[in-house]
Amino acid sequence: MQRNLYLTTTPVEEARAAYLEALRGDIRPQAEMIRVTDALGRITAEAVYAKFSSPLYNSAAMDGIAVISSRTDWASESSPVLLKPDEDYMIVDTGDPIRKPYDAVIMAEDIQETPDGVIIRSSAPAWQHVRPIGEDIISGEMILTRNHRIRPIDIGVLLSGGVTEIPAYRQPRVGIIPTGTEIVEPYDNPREGEIIESNSRMFEAMVRENGGIPMRYDIVRDDPDAIRESVQKALDENDLVIVNAGSSAGTEDYTVHILREIGEVFIHGVAMKPGKPVILARACGKPVVGIPGYPVSAYLAMENFVCPLLGALTGQKEAEGTTIQAVLTRRLVSSLRHREYVRVKVGKVGGRYVCAPLARGAGAAMSMVRADGFCIIPQETEGYEAGETVSVRLFRTMEELDRTLVCIGSHDLLLDIISDLMSGEPEGVRLSSTHIGSLGGLMALKRGEAHIAPSHLMDEKTGIYNESYIRTLFPGEEMVLVKTVGRVQGLIVAPGNPLGIRGVEDLTRVRFVNRQRGAGTRVLLDYKLSRAGIQAADVSGYDKEAATHMAVAAQVASGEADCGMGVYSAAHAMGLDFIPVGEEEYDFVMRKDSLDMPEVQCFLRLLGSEAFRSKLEELGGYTLEQPLKIREIPTGR
Amino acid sequence: MQRNLYLTTTPVEEARAAYLEALRGDIRPQAEMIRVTDALGRITAEAVYAKFSSPLYNSAAMDGIAVISSRTDWASESSPVLLKPDEDYMIVDTGDPIRKPYDAVIMAEDIQETPDGVIIRSSAPAWQHVRPIGEDIISGEMILTRNHRIRPIDIGVLLSGGVTEIPAYRQPRVGIIPTGTEIVEPYDNPREGEIIESNSRMFEAMVRENGGIPMRYDIVRDDPDAIRESVQKALDENDLVIVNAGSSAGTEDYTVHILREIGEVFIHGVAMKPGKPVILARACGKPVVGIPGYPVSAYLAMENFVCPLLGALTGQKEAEGTTIQAVLTRRLVSSLRHREYVRVKVGKVGGRYVCAPLARGAGAAMSMVRADGFCIIPQETEGYEAGETVSVRLFRTMEELDRTLVCIGSHDLLLDIISDLMSGEPEGVRLSSTHIGSLGGLMALKRGEAHIAPSHLMDEKTGIYNESYIRTLFPGEEMVLVKTVGRVQGLIVAPGNPLGIRGVEDLTRVRFVNRQRGAGTRVLLDYKLSRAGIQAADVSGYDKEAATHMAVAAQVASGEADCGMGVYSAAHAMGLDFIPVGEEEYDFVMRKDSLDMPEVQCFLRLLGSEAFRSKLEELGGYTLEQPLKIREIPTGR
Repeated sequence: MQRNLYLTTTPVEEARAAYLEALRGDIRPQAEMIRVTDALGRITAEAVYAKFSSPLYNSAAMDGIAVISSRTDWASESSPVLLKPDEDYMIVDTGDPIRKPYDAVIMAEDIQETPDGVIIRSSAPAWQHVRPIGEDIISGEMILTRNHRIRPIDIGVLLSGGVTEIPAYRQPRVGIIPTGTEIVEPYDNPREGEIIESNSRMFEAMVRENGGIPMRYDIVRDDPDAIRESVQKALDENDLVIVNAGSSAGTEDYTVHILREIGEVFIHGVAMKPGKPVILARACGKPVVGIPGYPVSAYLAMENFVCPLLGALTGQKEAEGTTIQAVLTRRLVSSLRHREYVRVKVGKVGGRYVCAPLARGAGAAMSMVRADGFCIIPQETEGYEAGETVSVRLFRTMEELDRTLVCIGSHDLLLDIISDLMSGEPEGVRLSSTHIGSLGGLMALKRGEAHIAPSHLMDEKTGIYNESYIRTLFPGEEMVLVKTVGRVQGLIVAPGNPLGIRGVEDLTRVRFVNRQRGAGTRVLLDYKLSRAGIQAADVSGYDKEAATHMAVAAQVASGEADCGMGVYSAAHAMGLDFIPVGEEEYDFVMRKDSLDMPEVQCFLRLLGSEAFRSKLEELGGYTLEQPLKIREIPTGR
Repeated sequence: MQRNLYLTTTPVEEARAAYLEALRGDIRPQAEMIRVTDALGRITAEAVYAKFSSPLYNSAAMDGIAVISSRTDWASESSPVLLKPDEDYMIVDTGDPIRKPYDAVIMAEDIQETPDGVIIRSSAPAWQHVRPIGEDIISGEMILTRNHRIRPIDIGVLLSGGVTEIPAYRQPRVGIIPTGTEIVEPYDNPREGEIIESNSRMFEAMVRENGGIPMRYDIVRDDPDAIRESVQKALDENDLVIVNAGSSAGTEDYTVHILREIGEVFIHGVAMKPGKPVILARACGKPVVGIPGYPVSAYLAMENFVCPLLGALTGQKEAEGTTIQAVLTRRLVSSLRHREYVRVKVGKVGGRYVCAPLARGAGAAMSMVRADGFCIIPQETEGYEAGETVSVRLFRTMEELDRTLVCIGSHDLLLDIISDLMSGEPEGVRLSSTHIGSLGGLMALKRGEAHIAPSHLMDEKTGIYNESYIRTLFPGEEMVLVKTVGRVQGLIVAPGNPLGIRGVEDLTRVRFVNRQRGAGTRVLLDYKLSRAGIQAADVSGYDKEAATHMAVAAQVASGEADCGMGVYSAAHAMGLDFIPVGEEEYDFVMRKDSLDMPEVQCFLRLLGSEAFRSKLEELGGYTLEQPLKIREIPTGR
């Protein structure tokens, strides 16, 4: 067991095992008696035995009459038998006790009532339609083993068996301390230099999901005394304490020093990315975990270190989640020094799963929201080649993935609208969209990584959109082009257009932000520049790339750039001014046989819907093809 | 749309579709604004957009210094550059804003501090280690679509994007009314004729799991006025009302009459078993569902009719659960008139899934607890043959099933003990045990339906247990016998032995309860009877069968029978007297190659454990083989 390592990088499993081993004497699940009626989702700490039998007594299994079976022996269709009330039978409903001398039940449907009693036409063998005592549950029998998560049916059976309280693992209390002078509560309006505190709220939810009770403390400024005081209070009040951020080695990262002072630090730094600067410590006989500040790092540190602690404290086995094999769409290079968690989009295209890497930064929390899973690159591995089959740990069910329409290509805000509309449809289908530009999308479609590709690539010779690209890229394949919208492209500028930009001819005198290579918008810009006789080298910022229309608009909004090219809706969404440059055609490309997919059917239905049309109008800058035109594109052969 | 049908049997899907259609105008999910910090597990009612970008400003991605990139251009190993504080650089921590004129960050590790400033040895390109505004989240972009279930990561991203409240579907309130004069609260001590009310507590849990808020009302006696009053109060206070029991056609089944009076009854009776007497109604524009009283019927009626209503009210898609293909171990006969839900045990034996039907009664709630899934026999189908491959809807994950040791054969209480101990082991393995008698277990092992078979079959010629049966049944196979316990069998009688029973010779004068054919205990009884010269026909109750030792003891405890044969531990558990008849050997049989299975390893380790030994001592009546003897049984060839 190594102690007090300073930001070395211990492998993940080794760090976890060493930490759990170091804490072995401190963390054990504790049992408490809880009411069965409050037990949903809790875990039994011991086996539970029935106190009563169910049924508690021999009882009628049907509505009808209780009879003495021996007196029915000779009844038949040809010789009916009359039974006298109180003497030969009594009326019973389901559940009523069957007491001596009665020993069988005849169903209400099988008797004929007369003024003198009832007539039966068949005999009733002893114990017919009688539930014997203990038929369901026998007093003293084991109903549940230990380590069983209580389901609704268990609650019913426990109560039927006379059990009203059960021993369950106590839910550990987890203190969560957000630190940082720059951190503000989400309800405050942050100014430049301030960061909204959101990690602790994610932690609360993760603690709840893992059977703990979170206890969040106020934000503590970067002051060693204040942090020490808060940690000590949290240690008094909880079974486990999380200190967020300050876990690295920066000028204001006090956590590790404080934990060394008041306890022991076992590990500082694990070989994972994102999430390296983790602190695994103990103070006052309780675990204290220092979690890095970047949201993806924080998530992974929680998942790898805090969730297993909660498992050990609640008797829960770790849920492993589903892992599938998927074909990687892009090369992934990683360092030998750490395990890397790469967020990926996953889709099922042409019968196989494909996964496409998303943004890899520790700060790219939104990519966690968008991701369908993690592709985990082990330590000691340099990465994977495009086309290699890799393991992906899913965040979603395979059923969800099987009903997901995979869209890769040019970005437009209308994709979000369709995605939202699809989520509201009864089919339970989903749109997964990744933005790598028009040409990238067509290549992905070609390689079988996408079902549909949104594209707005103009043929400079003919002025016709997309068709020549399809013919070139998909020779001999049956392709269709869904003509969707005309959209206005233009220059996005600061409100009021302070630099007086009138068109592409002014781009030589401003700071520009471009789109990535292969983006239709960049193709359009190049076309416009060449017609204006302007060289790329003369545009300052031509090489500065942003991946979406919104990212371009954001750069202009922040003053980072004076101008960028994009769609009206993006400028409009961010309150910027817009100088139209031209209208272009934004279409969807797919293989003809994809038209039969229920996901495509839903997608096309929504493109033609009134809801979509009115949302587009709200965004502004679009002309919608109505009705939708679906064209087969001849590709020769 | 059929109305007011009286216990006809509408097919399940038809009934559900007709009911949802009839309610179409009444039930719609409603949205409410909720705090993001309370949103875990809730479902978005609309798309959610970011209010702020994240980061909110260009910020340092690393701890280090912010520099003006153009001033670093000429720095290299051979010509280091000195930067002056405040003029050329400022110290920044991760997250600090990078303002003009600074446009790049150099990591702390890459600088050398001197009294005059810092020395750098490589240039910093513009925007190095700077997170541009909106790199993660761009103001105005869609973070979540509608119908998205909030996860911890979503909470973090929403708050980072400046969103503190989101529109979510309102959680419907569900009124639950238990009815029945014979029903008592679980906390009361039930007497004969009383039934513990447990269904409503199961319903509460099911409502919670399906996103609703349950509101349970007091038990109402079987009185039409009282029921009407309670239903009306519940309709005032809830979005949906469940009336439990009284939904059939018995003498005290008022529910349907009351619902006809105050509203409309669309369906009374669906073609499913268990669960036929369901009432689907509307009153005051709200759905009212009458649920049958038997617990399995109640569960299925909830699952088929109330859960879909909750889905419609909360915007949730129905979770389908996993369905697998499994080989059926026994013939299943079912009626053409209904769909039948047969509870099954599922195990993976020899690479294939096998499923064994459990008790089919509507009252057998314990079989729901024990079951691993449902085999659903469609309406219009007569059932399945043994050996047929059938679909099974699982209650468990496939991972759990893959780590389950399947044990079929003779019943003994020690199986519960081992099952409980296995659940406490770190391997995450599980014991699934089914009791069909020793011979039945060996046959199941033979057919590849079980991994191990507990058996206590004596060879009458030699007095040796199990070995001759293995040789006969498994010729040429490599088998092992795990000699486990000696256990005392005897006659279980009422406390104080009021009939003065001394041994099997007295069985001709008492009411006996026997075990089923193929049970080792029955084989032992037959052996003892034949040695005493007694004919089976002379034993009253010889044909009355119970499936387990505990079931025999329960019949004696209730006075149903005077005497039965079983193990000491069962008599002891139920406070009965016991007359020893002889000791027998209770062993486990398996194929030799099963010894390598981790589940078997865990099982054998626990059989030899101190914890097991002390539990056996508590039960009484056992002598444990220590150490465990594992014998290979020669089977010829």
